[in-house]
Amino acid sequence: MGREEPGTHARRWTSPDYRVDEGGKVVGGYRPSGPHNWGRWGDADVRGTTNLITAEVVLKAAGLVHSGEVISLALPIDDSAPRWPSRPPARHYFTMSGSDAVVGSPYNAAAPGAVYLDDGIDMSLQGSTQWDGLAHFTIADSTYNGHWVGNVTALGGAVDTGIHHQRESLVGRGVLLDVARHLGVDSLEPGTAIGPDVLDEVAAAQGVEVGTGDMVLVRTGYLSRWWTLEDTASRERYFTAVPGLGHACVPWFRERDIAALATDTVVVEVVPAEADAPRRLPVHHGALVDLGLTLGEFWDLDRLGVVCAADERYDFLLVAPPLHIRGAVGSVLNPVAIR
Amino acid sequence: MGREEPGTHARRWTSPDYRVDEGGKVVGGYRPSGPHNWGRWGDADVRGTTNLITAEVVLKAAGLVHSGEVISLALPIDDSAPRWPSRPPARHYFTMSGSDAVVGSPYNAAAPGAVYLDDGIDMSLQGSTQWDGLAHFTIADSTYNGHWVGNVTALGGAVDTGIHHQRESLVGRGVLLDVARHLGVDSLEPGTAIGPDVLDEVAAAQGVEVGTGDMVLVRTGYLSRWWTLEDTASRERYFTAVPGLGHACVPWFRERDIAALATDTVVVEVVPAEADAPRRLPVHHGALVDLGLTLGEFWDLDRLGVVCAADERYDFLLVAPPLHIRGAVGSVLNPVAIR
Amino acid sequence: MGREEPGTHARRWTSPDYRVDEGGKVVGGYRPSGPHNWGRWGDADVRGTTNLITAEVVLKAAGLVHSGEVISLALPIDDSAPRWPSRPPARHYFTMSGSDAVVGSPYNAAAPGAVYLDDGIDMSLQGSTQWDGLAHFTIADSTYNGHWVGNVTALGGAVDTGIHHQRESLVGRGVLLDVARHLGVDSLEPGTAIGPDVLDEVAAAQGVEVGTGDMVLVRTGYLSRWWTLEDTASRERYFTAVPGLGHACVPWFRERDIAALATDTVVVEVVPAEADAPRRLPVHHGALVDLGLTLGEFWDLDRLGVVCAADERYDFLLVAPPLHIRGAVGSVLNPVAIR
Amino acid sequence: MGREEPGTHARRWTSPDYRVDEGGKVVGGYRPSGPHNWGRWGDADVRGTTNLITAEVVLKAAGLVHSGEVISLALPIDDSAPRWPSRPPARHYFTMSGSDAVVGSPYNAAAPGAVYLDDGIDMSLQGSTQWDGLAHFTIADSTYNGHWVGNVTALGGAVDTGIHHQRESLVGRGVLLDVARHLGVDSLEPGTAIGPDVLDEVAAAQGVEVGTGDMVLVRTGYLSRWWTLEDTASRERYFTAVPGLGHACVPWFRERDIAALATDTVVVEVVPAEADAPRRLPVHHGALVDLGLTLGEFWDLDRLGVVCAADERYDFLLVAPPLHIRGAVGSVLNPVAIR
Repeated sequence: MGREEPGTHARRWTSPDYRVDEGGKVVGGYRPSGPHNWGRWGDADVRGTTNLITAEVVLKAAGLVHSGEVISLALPIDDSAPRWPSRPPARHYFTMSGSDAVVGSPYNAAAPGAVYLDDGIDMSLQGSTQWDGLAHFTIADSTYNGHWVGNVTALGGAVDTGIHHQRESLVGRGVLLDVARHLGVDSLEPGTAIGPDVLDEVAAAQGVEVGTGDMVLVRTGYLSRWWTLEDTASRERYFTAVPGLGHACVPWFRERDIAALATDTVVVEVVPAEADAPRRLPVHHGALVDLGLTLGEFWDLDRLGVVCAADERYDFLLVAPPLHIRGAVGSVLNPVAIR
Repeated sequence: MGREEPGTHARRWTSPDYRVDEGGKVVGGYRPSGPHNWGRWGDADVRGTTNLITAEVVLKAAGLVHSGEVISLALPIDDSAPRWPSRPPARHYFTMSGSDAVVGSPYNAAAPGAVYLDDGIDMSLQGSTQWDGLAHFTIADSTYNGHWVGNVTALGGAVDTGIHHQRESLVGRGVLLDVARHLGVDSLEPGTAIGPDVLDEVAAAQGVEVGTGDMVLVRTGYLSRWWTLEDTASRERYFTAVPGLGHACVPWFRERDIAALATDTVVVEVVPAEADAPRRLPVHHGALVDLGLTLGEFWDLDRLGVVCAADERYDFLLVAPPLHIRGAVGSVLNPVAIR
Repeated sequence: MGREEPGTHARRWTSPDYRVDEGGKVVGGYRPSGPHNWGRWGDADVRGTTNLITAEVVLKAAGLVHSGEVISLALPIDDSAPRWPSRPPARHYFTMSGSDAVVGSPYNAAAPGAVYLDDGIDMSLQGSTQWDGLAHFTIADSTYNGHWVGNVTALGGAVDTGIHHQRESLVGRGVLLDVARHLGVDSLEPGTAIGPDVLDEVAAAQGVEVGTGDMVLVRTGYLSRWWTLEDTASRERYFTAVPGLGHACVPWFRERDIAALATDTVVVEVVPAEADAPRRLPVHHGALVDLGLTLGEFWDLDRLGVVCAADERYDFLLVAPPLHIRGAVGSVLNPVAIR
Repeated sequence: MGREEPGTHARRWTSPDYRVDEGGKVVGGYRPSGPHNWGRWGDADVRGTTNLITAEVVLKAAGLVHSGEVISLALPIDDSAPRWPSRPPARHYFTMSGSDAVVGSPYNAAAPGAVYLDDGIDMSLQGSTQWDGLAHFTIADSTYNGHWVGNVTALGGAVDTGIHHQRESLVGRGVLLDVARHLGVDSLEPGTAIGPDVLDEVAAAQGVEVGTGDMVLVRTGYLSRWWTLEDTASRERYFTAVPGLGHACVPWFRERDIAALATDTVVVEVVPAEADAPRRLPVHHGALVDLGLTLGEFWDLDRLGVVCAADERYDFLLVAPPLHIRGAVGSVLNPVAIR
């Protein structure tokens, strides 16, 4: 290709040496060399590891509810919460406010006898507690299962790998791995990589097993630091080094056959990447592109951690379907743990 | 007041004859004369009937899961779905598209070696499958429990009765009352009012009981008509007469002590209102303002109806928390029925 | 290429057989076969015919001011005005409203002693009185002068042919050709094509000459019909047949060497295109891509027509610079004629 | 009133002791005690000092054009330019990008044979080079001429004092007072107050007179510092102390009877306010509310300063009409000086 590296900008360009077939799949392009799920659920599959969340998995997960407590794992969608700096802030606006009602708005020319308030929001779909869908990352113009990234357009959205295909999924067994609590700290230090051995150790200590179709929530405690930051400079630094999963976790995801993974941090994985990382953001590439594993970011796991520790039950019914936005790359959501 | 009717616009205005106390409650203003829940959960309560969804209710609802099937009740958030005409269409936009990746975007100046796609959405919070929160309607400048509507501002949002207060609720037992199926029609006719007797009759025929803390979903079948409309004129007419609940259902909501109500129509209630209706949109006023009962609109109940009829089980675990938008009046969402 | 026709969607794709050089120009691609300006102002030129508006042209145009009257040619940017149906409506929103001030907003926690109102707008840049910039149309992936359309991205905007390059231009001599008035009608009929002979005839009758560097405003009167339409169906029909310029005007633009062209209609050119048109929207292709001629749409020329007719002076100082939005394809604006 | 100070938030509220008459004017409310223009152009006037820009003024201003040079005074509407921190950044988005065209977008299902690019923008109307309209500030719920601020609603916009009333104005004689150049500095220091004596001194030194109906542009040079700032902390500090006009300039505006005033800074006036200032932001209150004087902020006067100094001509034709947004409080724009 004309770009030295995928995504590098230059005015110069030569056209790619792959072609795209009638199914929208790249022919003659990238193929994963490590653990992957391409073709596992068919050539046309667009859902990846959520295929592992079968009805049986959901049924068993419902059986985990023992107290009826509902815990929201969502950050507020506003300026108070952390947000990757390059993403725009959400804007919540009113088309008819309560103050308008008090001053006597023009509304009732159209609807005499009724006064109603309406609002809207403009928000990044990756700008708060969120799922990264399978179209979020690409390697050499391919996304999961070889679907061409060129079929994700400003005009038409993500035709093949949009997150709307998951709208009746991401409901099942959630397992919290509370790494920070296990290590006895409020938060892991910035830049700390969590290896698969640590995940196994935490699971064992918590007395919980991670298995096929599980949605795994890894708590670093790093979110709790955000609320203590008082100036812009420290809020910027918050994102330059972050604790998170190391790249050796990717094979572990495949071995355990988990369905989804979420953390209380901005990018799931450790920042900066480990010295031996095969590429920048290796967990994103390995999980989203190679495995078809949906990733959750900025999940607020702090209260969940407290509650799970109290009765030493770390698995629960997790209900976290994305919004039904056709062709969306990702989705903000309000995931709830039901215990 | 200087407006002849609340909300009527005129340049002229005289200031209201009520005052607002330190708790943000109207003193000397509107008080419900019919069934209501003002004060029932304390003077400061902002959640209304979702107080009825106790942990015990949730625990029992989880026990209803018997097959592990997950059914999304959300319409797509796009131009294809019905939307009250005065509300703006959703706009899904990309800040980095897949087509950008193919042409080699400028992105990688900042992040060499990684190409990621991002998107956002601008949408009415009442413009798709949604909850109307308790700040959505006002009578004489009061909202539920006497909270002053003037504390819902463009700048600050709904301080007291924002839907974010419900973010760990609206999870519990859902009961489908499939009126259309019971009557043997694809859709009720526009303008058909559903009385409480019909609701009781459908429940009895279905072998299901409606009780304290339930979220009741009433299916008129009218949504299915939308997809057949081919021109703008018929899509406009779609909203001028609509089947829905009659105003006599409001006392029934209170007697049954339900927690929430949703339909597959634009406004829950029959349009136009019945001849003896005490006011325009009497169900909205009675439910939202007097009872503190959250209302759901444009829920897609068609597949749920088929599935429930198949095994004659009309209750299920319903997981429908709103998004965590502080101060929002309403919320779009992806409600799921788990059976 | 893999698409049968430029822009046709199919999942299938084969990469283009052109390449793009270091200057962002297509090598081995489209070349105009008719009148054009490619290379006329250098290989790197991004401004096209506005190069013809020299300081001398501006100086002379200033000399046309004789009464000091200022006439705005802008439609209101709101739902009342016509807008191509596929473009989203503008949304004007308040972040702090006057009604908020009356109820006592939370603002002053941050700024005691000052109450200010703020607002914003979300609008299509081609959704009201507007300029179509040179990146607005493409033929076989080339835009004016051979600049590659692939360098117009969601992420980075129109690097080469963005309308910001015109921000100190589009100021000069405006000439109104009032075709409707000349023909003695309120509006041309839908589907009427205006040929170059008509333009010459109107100019002659008005006693005005069209010359190098002029911005020509052609009034069809069709805008005046919009305000009389009462239902959605007629507002839809308004766009299916429209009077406008025929494709034979393109060579005339080149011969006269005009700098820009605007009309009071949605697409400048006649809709549907004439039977012998070389392609769909031939004026857009010929003007924007081949000539590099900026096009204005939905200019409100009705009052200007009245005023020009009154003193029989049809030329004036026209000040119509676009907004300074880097990388924008087009721009809404408030053009003013100063007489 | 129930608020200790206008705009202070508390849940508590008592209704105002004024009333609003049929013309939307406050009865029994605020009246200016210093220099003002209330009633000067009638009780219903909504335009304030731009009434002073008569056709004669425009005609004379056109006579100032001597070279035909056009200078844009607009900052780019993007993240690179300074913006008051609490205002949201502009978001320029594509509904159809050039990269979409290259990959073969779904567009042409609807329009075979034509590929066009479209974009839009969401922007604060006070977030770049801008006019603050007369509804931007309020004292005790009154705006200029006693118009009630309560008639500026989220739903209906600024009915009376919206900036659309100025859409055929703000065109006339511009006068640059280049304070920084006169003092021989690149930029005034943060916190420096410019008094009326300085304005007179600069005018005299430049050999220019300020008179009735002029639009005065005051250059502090402070804008040039923005581009040198390299980190967020210094960009935050940029706004905590700013050079600008002192409050003693307000009577000077009235004496000179200028029509509008703009600077190259964020708030026109000195920040923080002088020790003897009668209120916070005294120039805003005095100009907008008492005088009805439109204020321009963030005008890029750097190149204009160079050019004016070169031929020692500091007056020019200034064409700076706002966008035609009905009910808008302010407007971004691309003002041009024509010399």
